[in-house]
Amino acid sequence: MRLFWERGYEGTSMNDLAAATGMAKPGLYATFGDKEALYRKALSVYFHELGAPLVEDLARSPDPIAVVIRRFLETVAESVRGKHCPSGCFVANSVVECLGERPSLQDMARDYDAKRRAIFVKRFKQAQKNGELPAEADATALAEFFSGQALALAVMGRAGASRKSLQRFIDTAMTVLPARVPANRLPS
Amino acid sequence: MRLFWERGYEGTSMNDLAAATGMAKPGLYATFGDKEALYRKALSVYFHELGAPLVEDLARSPDPIAVVIRRFLETVAESVRGKHCPSGCFVANSVVECLGERPSLQDMARDYDAKRRAIFVKRFKQAQKNGELPAEADATALAEFFSGQALALAVMGRAGASRKSLQRFIDTAMTVLPARVPANRLPS
Repeated sequence: MRLFWERGYEGTSMNDLAAATGMAKPGLYATFGDKEALYRKALSVYFHELGAPLVEDLARSPDPIAVVIRRFLETVAESVRGKHCPSGCFVANSVVECLGERPSLQDMARDYDAKRRAIFVKRFKQAQKNGELPAEADATALAEFFSGQALALAVMGRAGASRKSLQRFIDTAMTVLPARVPANRLPS
Repeated sequence: MRLFWERGYEGTSMNDLAAATGMAKPGLYATFGDKEALYRKALSVYFHELGAPLVEDLARSPDPIAVVIRRFLETVAESVRGKHCPSGCFVANSVVECLGERPSLQDMARDYDAKRRAIFVKRFKQAQKNGELPAEADATALAEFFSGQALALAVMGRAGASRKSLQRFIDTAMTVLPARVPANRLPS
């Protein structure tokens, strides 16, 4: 999985996969099918074992929305940071590699991206229902905005952004979240 | 250029390049050198002819910062949108393809990304000097934030986001920009 995640579909050869798994190429083909099937498998493992649990914390955590969103973005920032070639988000990478020639992979990456976004929307609508967000806020817009911040962080991480710079980015993005009861507060 | 931009370094073969340019492979090698040299040439043409003019509008336009930033993001959104396989931002794509095995390409993409960000920082600092932004605003944080929004839009565009969704994203991001004289205004 890590090879595809780091190098993308086109950047990974069956020889690389054979070397990484210690399996001969015929064995790889016999067990998994072709390279496209191996990529699908890798993306599915990533989504279900790494991506989804992170997003599901959003859906399940009883913490206030500002806390869960900040935790989500900080986890993303931490995971995408690194000097050499951090992996970023495998789903975002797949979307960007944009496998137009391989529609089944493109559809799969877009589908996971949409699932992730749907969880954001659900959590923001719930927050609004709970009174955590003002009634006049646009919950869908906020959800899509914060879901998009994770993509920005993933690209910035791959571009070699420092921890300080990613943290500042998150702090700035968090100012978009409307305060619960802004009308009752005056600047001190 | 378009081939590398759409498909990335690994997704483009010398055969593809020969077909697209109508040159025989030996002619391509003789004129441009190897595939890496061709990619460098393509990325340089993109940056200087398409990317840089867009960012330089930021630096040069006499319009208020809120106007130039919105125009920049809307231009990005328009250029990355499309059903099949929109190209997104060639610099962002290069960063995400993360050519760890080819440090000269990776450095070039990161360098262009840094140049772009530096223009944002310069414009925001100037805005603060002009009184367009409050003195207490963090001009660097705002610059990096809006520079990052372009990356998010590029990935969302490649993921097939609708025009409406990208517009809503921009509207939400724009709320980060502090008002010039917030202390003098009361909600009406």
